[in-house]
Amino acid sequence: MGTTLTELARLVQGSVRGEAGFLVEQANSLDRAGPRDITFVANARYLDDLNGTRAGAVILTEADATHFSGNALIVANPQLAFARVCAHLHPLSMPPPGVHPSAVVDARAQVAPSAIVGPGAVVGPDAMIGAGVWIGPGCIIGSQVVIGERSRLMAHVVVHDACIVGRDCLLQPGAVIGADGFGFARDGSRWIKQPQFGRVVIGDEAEVGANTTIDRGTFGDTVIGDRVKLDNLIHIAHNVRIGEDTAIAACVGIAGSTVVGKRCTIAGQAGIIGHVEIADDVHITAASAVMSSLTEAGVYSSGIRAEPAADWRRNVVRLQQLDELARRLKKLEQTIQRLSKE
Amino acid sequence: MGTTLTELARLVQGSVRGEAGFLVEQANSLDRAGPRDITFVANARYLDDLNGTRAGAVILTEADATHFSGNALIVANPQLAFARVCAHLHPLSMPPPGVHPSAVVDARAQVAPSAIVGPGAVVGPDAMIGAGVWIGPGCIIGSQVVIGERSRLMAHVVVHDACIVGRDCLLQPGAVIGADGFGFARDGSRWIKQPQFGRVVIGDEAEVGANTTIDRGTFGDTVIGDRVKLDNLIHIAHNVRIGEDTAIAACVGIAGSTVVGKRCTIAGQAGIIGHVEIADDVHITAASAVMSSLTEAGVYSSGIRAEPAADWRRNVVRLQQLDELARRLKKLEQTIQRLSKE
Amino acid sequence: MGTTLTELARLVQGSVRGEAGFLVEQANSLDRAGPRDITFVANARYLDDLNGTRAGAVILTEADATHFSGNALIVANPQLAFARVCAHLHPLSMPPPGVHPSAVVDARAQVAPSAIVGPGAVVGPDAMIGAGVWIGPGCIIGSQVVIGERSRLMAHVVVHDACIVGRDCLLQPGAVIGADGFGFARDGSRWIKQPQFGRVVIGDEAEVGANTTIDRGTFGDTVIGDRVKLDNLIHIAHNVRIGEDTAIAACVGIAGSTVVGKRCTIAGQAGIIGHVEIADDVHITAASAVMSSLTEAGVYSSGIRAEPAADWRRNVVRLQQLDELARRLKKLEQTIQRLSKE
Repeated sequence: MGTTLTELARLVQGSVRGEAGFLVEQANSLDRAGPRDITFVANARYLDDLNGTRAGAVILTEADATHFSGNALIVANPQLAFARVCAHLHPLSMPPPGVHPSAVVDARAQVAPSAIVGPGAVVGPDAMIGAGVWIGPGCIIGSQVVIGERSRLMAHVVVHDACIVGRDCLLQPGAVIGADGFGFARDGSRWIKQPQFGRVVIGDEAEVGANTTIDRGTFGDTVIGDRVKLDNLIHIAHNVRIGEDTAIAACVGIAGSTVVGKRCTIAGQAGIIGHVEIADDVHITAASAVMSSLTEAGVYSSGIRAEPAADWRRNVVRLQQLDELARRLKKLEQTIQRLSKE
Repeated sequence: MGTTLTELARLVQGSVRGEAGFLVEQANSLDRAGPRDITFVANARYLDDLNGTRAGAVILTEADATHFSGNALIVANPQLAFARVCAHLHPLSMPPPGVHPSAVVDARAQVAPSAIVGPGAVVGPDAMIGAGVWIGPGCIIGSQVVIGERSRLMAHVVVHDACIVGRDCLLQPGAVIGADGFGFARDGSRWIKQPQFGRVVIGDEAEVGANTTIDRGTFGDTVIGDRVKLDNLIHIAHNVRIGEDTAIAACVGIAGSTVVGKRCTIAGQAGIIGHVEIADDVHITAASAVMSSLTEAGVYSSGIRAEPAADWRRNVVRLQQLDELARRLKKLEQTIQRLSKE
Repeated sequence: MGTTLTELARLVQGSVRGEAGFLVEQANSLDRAGPRDITFVANARYLDDLNGTRAGAVILTEADATHFSGNALIVANPQLAFARVCAHLHPLSMPPPGVHPSAVVDARAQVAPSAIVGPGAVVGPDAMIGAGVWIGPGCIIGSQVVIGERSRLMAHVVVHDACIVGRDCLLQPGAVIGADGFGFARDGSRWIKQPQFGRVVIGDEAEVGANTTIDRGTFGDTVIGDRVKLDNLIHIAHNVRIGEDTAIAACVGIAGSTVVGKRCTIAGQAGIIGHVEIADDVHITAASAVMSSLTEAGVYSSGIRAEPAADWRRNVVRLQQLDELARRLKKLEQTIQRLSKE
């Protein structure tokens, strides 16, 4: 039947301005919120839209609240408070605990009584499924895998033999944890497989996106730190280590044995070659290609903004003459210097 | 036992030249077609190959038909006519309607009697599976999902709770519809999940490629328009909207809340950042990175053609000196101007 | 209980230096190897680490062995010998042959008695599953598919109707073989599907990475040669042909009908447009975009190394003025020539 603003304020350590007993029914975006909904404004850009809102209550900073006359929940960080309010007002709807009759759970697996194993899921020998874990439909959990408490694996997640997933993780559909690393030895022109014996170890509160792949280490482990957030269709190669609180957007590839620091952000379609180290607090912009270690915190780029094709064709032709252009410039400088002296 | 050229001509609104009662058994490519096969030529480049063909009949434009003496089906657009002839001569071979005994269909799901639900598929509560729909083996259909009439979901497609797929769609294996959008609030250096409440809504006659992922909206919907064609391994982020008749090639990524117009084409490995708008009839070439709104129809590029590595190394070093080169050029121009005046 | 160095030497055609009867229990990396482990050094860079190792034996070249006083296995190619030793010491642990009761195998499929069909797998009519094949949990094998002897399909692999997988292949989880190619005809602004009738044919000893997609040919086949190694999240379009012994790293896309030669390497996130030919022994570096045929063996590049964003912004602005800069340079050269003559 709803939650009062006072209760929400307690949840997010904020204060109410307006009707403290106002009953909030759901969270919504600024443009969609109705008279029983709570929304938020975190960016002064949206203040104009604020007075047109039909929302029953708005989460705001103290400064922004001066622009609004309705019910307000005043906090330091409205976006964060809103995320928490959303989770509170809309708790996950989970099926009852237990193993679905169509699931195939090995006799030697340990599944906590409070865990859910969905239809068609497969759990291998000696796997340990923690309390409150939700293994979604069609997931494949290999032998000796450990899934920590309260982690959720959506549909069709694969966690291969011996890999470890921490507590409170969320793995989106189609994620593949622990496929073989891409390692081969040369035998003349032939490639001979290097067997891959390591694991993937994922920390607590990590998220892995849909169809993202994290390969097991060759020896030793591929390590995803606590609270690392990975978007969809990312490739993390064998023996990569990613520091805690780093977030990586979709379509990024990170090659083997590279170490990424803590609190980094890597934007979409960026790539990092193998065997390099990225310092803490590095931010890599979209479509950039990191080809060496980055030892200092900061922002790095090499992506190029698309422009009209006719312009681009002219410029890109010159790019492939650039060394020659630079040499001609140098020669001109020398000529001028000579001429100036005459 | 085959279809006469006359019947095919009626199907594609063309005319027969040659033996009207010729029985065509199957469609094939120009180089593979045999004496009972029909093929096509859409491009004058292939006219030379035409006279070597063993095909029993060829679909041609009126102009191109003057180069060929065999049975011809004359149409304005041979490629289009051929696509239709292929579909006619080779109708899909579908299993009989019904739910496979190994599928898990919730008691509250509604499955049309003419629909097929394959082995190991899972259909959640309150899902609606329309007439003639084919849910392939291992597909996972969440609660409250709607799949429109005659849509086909190949193996292992995931459609998450509350998402909508229109009529006559085709979803290739491994496609993930409705995973969570990648949205987080900052709590100091930590990322706190923003729950994702929106849906994915796919129009009619859309195609989604293998292992492509389309995330649900945060609030509101991610929208794929009618007849949008998406190739494999594409990432469509939360709240993206793609206009009807747009086609997107493999490995493209589109970040959150971006709006793509109608009738656009986006070539392979291109990317578009979030929160921008792409006009109708925009064409983006391969490997281009769109970093701002494109408000005019036209062709846009930023991809760079690979060249021999030794040349490229010389040029790319200069690229990273380019601002300095430009300043030196400016200075030279000033010197010359001064010299010229002396 | 272990294997003697003498036996391992016979396996890899090497010679023992030290204790010939030394019992090796397992293979491990240089930094992790213990007193009953064998490791290797293939690169002089790691010679410094060699004397700190706790390994019971080390595979080395004759030259490098002079830097080490412990038990050594002397070979020409230590990396190759180590891969073979790993496979010998750690044979795959496979479940017993047979079809899991939860698998759905069509009555018309032929499954060799020595094959394994895992939980929840689906095998279609007229499929042929060879001797010693391992079909992992949740795999979907279409009708008329052939899987050659000893090939292993990890969890959730899809092989669509009529596709062929050779002997001794390894397909990682989530790989999709034989989805429809991305082919459409134009009907005004609408796209009309070109039905896709070809197959995917994979040779012997090939490897396909996790969530990689290989589309079937439109007519004719998409062909993956013997011993081709494909990493994760790669897109291979319809009618592509890849020559034997070529290795392709993660996140690469290859567009339709392109032919890649033998013994090529393509590094991560590179792309190749459609309808081009790549010669044998071509090497494409990371993030490069191949936009035309490459008719000569060699190394090709167009990837750009990320640099600090402030520097990059200055340089990339100039890139989009590059044609103008080149014209100004040309003009200056002409002015100087005139001035020099005066």
